[in-house]
Amino acid sequence: MSALEVGLIGAGTVGGEVARRLYSGAEELEQRVGCPIRLRRVAVRDGARLRPGIPADLLTTDVEAVLSDPGVSIVVELAGGEEPARTYLDRALANGKHVVTANKVVMARHGAELLELARRMDVEIAFEAAVGGGIPVIGTLTNELAANRLDLLVAIINGTTNSMLTQMAAEGVDFEAALRAAQASGYAEADPTEDIEAFDAASKLAIMASIAFGAQVHPDQVYREGIGGVQAVDFRYARELGYTIKLIAYAERRPEGIEVRTHPCMVPLTHPLAHIDGATNAVLIRGDLVGEVLLRGQGAGSGPTASAVLGDIIEVGRAIRAGGHARPRYQWQRAPILPMTSVTTRAYVRCTVSDRPGVLAGIFSVFGEEGVSISSAIQKEVFVGDGAAEFVVTTHRAPDAALRRTCDRIGGLDSVHRVSSFLRVLSAG
Amino acid sequence: MSALEVGLIGAGTVGGEVARRLYSGAEELEQRVGCPIRLRRVAVRDGARLRPGIPADLLTTDVEAVLSDPGVSIVVELAGGEEPARTYLDRALANGKHVVTANKVVMARHGAELLELARRMDVEIAFEAAVGGGIPVIGTLTNELAANRLDLLVAIINGTTNSMLTQMAAEGVDFEAALRAAQASGYAEADPTEDIEAFDAASKLAIMASIAFGAQVHPDQVYREGIGGVQAVDFRYARELGYTIKLIAYAERRPEGIEVRTHPCMVPLTHPLAHIDGATNAVLIRGDLVGEVLLRGQGAGSGPTASAVLGDIIEVGRAIRAGGHARPRYQWQRAPILPMTSVTTRAYVRCTVSDRPGVLAGIFSVFGEEGVSISSAIQKEVFVGDGAAEFVVTTHRAPDAALRRTCDRIGGLDSVHRVSSFLRVLSAG
Repeated sequence: MSALEVGLIGAGTVGGEVARRLYSGAEELEQRVGCPIRLRRVAVRDGARLRPGIPADLLTTDVEAVLSDPGVSIVVELAGGEEPARTYLDRALANGKHVVTANKVVMARHGAELLELARRMDVEIAFEAAVGGGIPVIGTLTNELAANRLDLLVAIINGTTNSMLTQMAAEGVDFEAALRAAQASGYAEADPTEDIEAFDAASKLAIMASIAFGAQVHPDQVYREGIGGVQAVDFRYARELGYTIKLIAYAERRPEGIEVRTHPCMVPLTHPLAHIDGATNAVLIRGDLVGEVLLRGQGAGSGPTASAVLGDIIEVGRAIRAGGHARPRYQWQRAPILPMTSVTTRAYVRCTVSDRPGVLAGIFSVFGEEGVSISSAIQKEVFVGDGAAEFVVTTHRAPDAALRRTCDRIGGLDSVHRVSSFLRVLSAG
Repeated sequence: MSALEVGLIGAGTVGGEVARRLYSGAEELEQRVGCPIRLRRVAVRDGARLRPGIPADLLTTDVEAVLSDPGVSIVVELAGGEEPARTYLDRALANGKHVVTANKVVMARHGAELLELARRMDVEIAFEAAVGGGIPVIGTLTNELAANRLDLLVAIINGTTNSMLTQMAAEGVDFEAALRAAQASGYAEADPTEDIEAFDAASKLAIMASIAFGAQVHPDQVYREGIGGVQAVDFRYARELGYTIKLIAYAERRPEGIEVRTHPCMVPLTHPLAHIDGATNAVLIRGDLVGEVLLRGQGAGSGPTASAVLGDIIEVGRAIRAGGHARPRYQWQRAPILPMTSVTTRAYVRCTVSDRPGVLAGIFSVFGEEGVSISSAIQKEVFVGDGAAEFVVTTHRAPDAALRRTCDRIGGLDSVHRVSSFLRVLSAG
């Protein structure tokens, strides 16, 4: 069979890695697919820049030349970002090209339309690299676990924040120092908003939840809190109480709808996600037949991402070679997304209080009035200010709204200087 | 599109679970595949036994009636064992049926012929359930990681032995007590040979290594030691040295050939497999692009195994519905399997020695003469017998042959009562 020709959009670090392997691994790839895979054209923004390993005559700054090249059967989009990438994918599919993409933003926000367009055009669209780098999470949710009624996803899915929180836990540094270190070592962008405000985690969670629950979840529907409020002292209390702190992406299918949220979270040290450190990512999936499955690996980086992109190219290549129709795998129903007010969770609350009689009685009575029961409590002297003590509680499971109300009311007590920290607590696995 | 009809061979616990879900989950399965999946016929050995959830008129004791039924498009083999299961699979494929099987023995010993037959007949053969229950290991090796040059698999892949070793580690019981407990709770068979002598692990490792390395590995080529020699006292030394003991399945592709072995192993507590406890299984895969990926879940049981079987039925159903040709995914080259004598590893040696001057000098000089350097050494009084001490060493990496020779020579020293334990040590992850 004649070669399958690939058109690449974007030749950054991932694109470069993909291109290199298409040459250096040509023989193995041909064995896997059953016919040669060839790089035909590479669209780049800056045509003057040197791209080591990519022959100069393949480079073009004209994306249209890739999207409409009749010789290209697979368009691989690695440009990233929402636009113009969405338009490129739309045009590629409309032109009858099979598509492989690593674009989490586009798949999270426009996945449903693109999947529908692919179905109509009878072409494949593959996006394993959009979530979790080289971790086979999309494939697992789509194929191996497809017979399960999946009801829970708990994930550490952003390497930047996990590296920062790991450093904070290990070295006792504060958020700002961890951010500077992450930026210095290249883990965090100059503008780190996407990672530390959990937009990245929300996009990935929306994609995973949509597939796992067969219901369309938009990233704007994901409840989201960044890690900027987590302080060094919280890690000390966490350790004392048997926890660590992670940015958790959490999705649960409940009878009344879907709960999707990402926020920093106290994670019990006995939970399998507690020891996922640094740039490592992991996804815990629960299904009614399979029980709990955990997938763990490098969630970002050019090698792991290229691994996923090339795996998709191989699968799409096999599909093309086999002939027949594309295999639409996704049918997303509408399902209600639950507001945060209908979530129940455990919580950790740290506040600074006056060190005088009756203070705790006042605080506890607020918890009692809101129907929130206490799981553990610690009081310590603090060394900032006279006559002040730091008071920490963890609660049993309660409505999130009641927990927030409790914090507001406690913060308003005369004897309470401030509520310094409010973190949700993940239930033990 | 009209329904796809499934013929089931075997209606034990897994078969029953599969059949139940085909009914109770019919609507979801139809959504996933795009057409209904129907149970058409179920071959059982004992036609008189009641099979709750399976309509009596589907049951037959005539396997041929399933294998040659022109209405059956997918044969699902859950009979287990080498024969007659291999013959059934062979006949099913020869009759042009697509095949789903959970049979590790047949796939490990006859996978190559069956895959070749499937290729010739242009049908799919899927066997995710043959290794690791619900853990998506076959799919991951075959698809998501297919672009990698994989060079290492390290796995805990047998739930029975892992449950026993976990209990020995936690409770200090000896092997016989752990085996009796496992048999009482149903984890271990009345004849536990298959599990405790690591035949089961060897079959699963042979399948994984064949796919990962693209080279045919027969289970008889896997170096194999059971867990019967592991003693309670070894767990105490392990803990003291920062290890635990696991039955490890290990495969490595080296330039000169493939190393495949399964045996009890000291695992550093810092290694991700050290905390895989009880019936949980896990597979660590290393590839040149992806780095290390760990897949973890329930490696056995009717639910997890049915999850994998049904996932394969869904994928094969999608393939049938898409039309076109089958997608042969495996091309196994011949590659030399390295003998154990060419393996290098670290080791743990425990021996009982006379408690008198010069004994250790004699032992250490044997290590030195064999070129084995010591990593750590512990000497303790033992409470069995007078004037005896227990002496434990861990070594640095050395040729396995030199390690064995060292043990033999030490065992022959006048001052050494016996070498009580020899375990290989897994290098830190």
